[in-house]
Amino acid sequence: MTGRADREVAVQAEGVKRVRADLACFGGEPAFADDIRVGTPNVPAKERYLELVSQAIDRRWLSNLGPLVQEFEGRAAERTLRRHNTATSNATAALQVAAKACGLTGEVIMPSFTFVATAHAMSWIGLTPVFCDVDPATGTLDPLSVAKAVTPRTGGILGVHIWGNLCDSAALDEVARDAGVPLVYDSAQAFGCRPLAPGPMGSAEVFSFHATKILNTFEGGLVATDSDEVHARVRSMHNFGFDEAMRVIGPGTNAKMSESSAAMGIASIERLDATLATYRSLHLRYREGLAQVPGVTLFEAPAGQTHNHQYIVVRVDPGAAGLDRDRLFDVLGAENIRTKKYFAPGCHRMPPYRSDAVHTPLDLPVTEELTERVLSLPIGLSVSPQDVDRICDVIAAAVRHA
Amino acid sequence: MTGRADREVAVQAEGVKRVRADLACFGGEPAFADDIRVGTPNVPAKERYLELVSQAIDRRWLSNLGPLVQEFEGRAAERTLRRHNTATSNATAALQVAAKACGLTGEVIMPSFTFVATAHAMSWIGLTPVFCDVDPATGTLDPLSVAKAVTPRTGGILGVHIWGNLCDSAALDEVARDAGVPLVYDSAQAFGCRPLAPGPMGSAEVFSFHATKILNTFEGGLVATDSDEVHARVRSMHNFGFDEAMRVIGPGTNAKMSESSAAMGIASIERLDATLATYRSLHLRYREGLAQVPGVTLFEAPAGQTHNHQYIVVRVDPGAAGLDRDRLFDVLGAENIRTKKYFAPGCHRMPPYRSDAVHTPLDLPVTEELTERVLSLPIGLSVSPQDVDRICDVIAAAVRHA
Repeated sequence: MTGRADREVAVQAEGVKRVRADLACFGGEPAFADDIRVGTPNVPAKERYLELVSQAIDRRWLSNLGPLVQEFEGRAAERTLRRHNTATSNATAALQVAAKACGLTGEVIMPSFTFVATAHAMSWIGLTPVFCDVDPATGTLDPLSVAKAVTPRTGGILGVHIWGNLCDSAALDEVARDAGVPLVYDSAQAFGCRPLAPGPMGSAEVFSFHATKILNTFEGGLVATDSDEVHARVRSMHNFGFDEAMRVIGPGTNAKMSESSAAMGIASIERLDATLATYRSLHLRYREGLAQVPGVTLFEAPAGQTHNHQYIVVRVDPGAAGLDRDRLFDVLGAENIRTKKYFAPGCHRMPPYRSDAVHTPLDLPVTEELTERVLSLPIGLSVSPQDVDRICDVIAAAVRHA
Repeated sequence: MTGRADREVAVQAEGVKRVRADLACFGGEPAFADDIRVGTPNVPAKERYLELVSQAIDRRWLSNLGPLVQEFEGRAAERTLRRHNTATSNATAALQVAAKACGLTGEVIMPSFTFVATAHAMSWIGLTPVFCDVDPATGTLDPLSVAKAVTPRTGGILGVHIWGNLCDSAALDEVARDAGVPLVYDSAQAFGCRPLAPGPMGSAEVFSFHATKILNTFEGGLVATDSDEVHARVRSMHNFGFDEAMRVIGPGTNAKMSESSAAMGIASIERLDATLATYRSLHLRYREGLAQVPGVTLFEAPAGQTHNHQYIVVRVDPGAAGLDRDRLFDVLGAENIRTKKYFAPGCHRMPPYRSDAVHTPLDLPVTEELTERVLSLPIGLSVSPQDVDRICDVIAAAVRHA
């Protein structure tokens, strides 16, 4: 017990895991008494939310395109920089609406390296995901891989701005134009990320305001588009196929955002600049803390865009780090640092896609490599700069000792 | 102006529209200064809701099957009397999940006389609605009409407990068994409605907690089933195809209910008995107020079930009433009484179904008649007994004079 007490003193004094036995996986005290997580919800303005939702209740207007949803759509437009913005129940429903509103059909080319909802949203409505490879530096859809996958059965392309890294939209736009198919973006992770120079951005894009996103509405999403025609179809389809006179004019679903969700969205978007600044500073803190750790490389924001730094993603190279991603995941877990393997495995290795003849065999070397190497670290308004220092200390110790 | 002042005195004194000119459509003062509506949201426990949602925010657990959703599912089970209950983002998403979880395929036989979401939920996921006729007394699916519509392409039957009137479940169960297809119920309007004697109730049923329902969660729904197998698929499918270990095991979508919605559900279900009692007493008040009005007949609850009286629906027979449903709708509208033509037109007369070769020509005489004759009158916690008296007075005056 003396050894253990000594170690505690050392950890407290220097805030680091100095020797192998300091690591919790070797019997040391965990670096965090309580779990520290990826995606703990941000609620920057609880009282403001309660005030807004209380007003909604008093006016007895709880859903159905109410005043809070309208206001939130207006505020969101300032961030998406799109002409038309439709708030939705969640981003998966929004992807379904966007796919139908933009006319995606048959086979839809998309990355395998994404959250499974991207593929599931398509297959839910009868479309067939066809998986392509991604760029190793950004994790976004590789336009050459897309171009090679185009066939007469291709009915659309779905790019994903993974981790807030914007796709090479100009190149994808050219591939889509050559193929004569619509291009849609899954921007679920990219709220607050915009190109510095205007350019083609596809027929529509879909944002997520799920609880774990940088801006959350409990559950929620948004379809954004510059096209009047696409917008008209989105408005109708997300509300049972109604037109503005409440006549059914075509197919539809219920993908409406509630007033409670919009209240949270408004309260949070009013503080978004401060939230983004916090994330940026935590990102820089991680960069500093991990700079000297061999084999653990922070993904940096691509040039030419604003970024939300919503995810802190490192690439673990076992040769240089002396341990692989899965081992680091376990070592950090023992310290109560709950990281995520975002995104592993690739969608093409999950049911139902892995058993689908369309998808096998697939040659996605970058996806295979990334899914084995990436790890997403805790960030959010509940993560302090000191927490980041401690996490970086633990990672450094893991690389030294584990 | 003297005549108008006289009328006002008369209306105030007796609370009725005594002469033709008292009706707003003929220049009288509207019976209501502000609109009185069908489906104004019930919020029986605002403070309790705010307390619960505030707790959810403090624990930073805003979605993803949180403690409030779990509690709400447990409370809802006491009302659905089903073994398994899964709360959802809304009822349309729930219908999609239930259809896939129960294995509906190809053509699905359903009533045309329903809210369009019933049909739209099926077509959204690639199923084909085939419309049948309904019983004139209850508005629910006619089992004989269903049996006649069964073909080798039939892959499921979808009954709708319209206005809270339960379908003839025993007969539908037999038709489904003979056809060898799954039977699912759309119970969107039937929360609180259960058969007095237990019997077959299909593979699953779907409830709605939309803002306008007797119990609301802003937006929300529920899939209820007694089948362990169906339940397992519903749980997975409504959460991205994950199993309990968060591995993707099959197709899915996001149909999760948020903690804010569950908070409203819990706060409201705690008061549900009182809410149901209020609706029952308003229903009786309408019955009394309309008893002597020729040609305007209140639909009554079928025997053998509990009922939520969520909708006050009258049938307007022009021969006896001297005016038709559309004229009564207009006359009441002028009085600021906002009624609804629930449900008109039938789904088979709306796009995209009316243009689909599968659906034409259709012979649905009861549906055609009901869609021309039914009218839904204001009810809800914001409607007082005196409001009901005044509405009945106006209807009586309309029949006398309009």
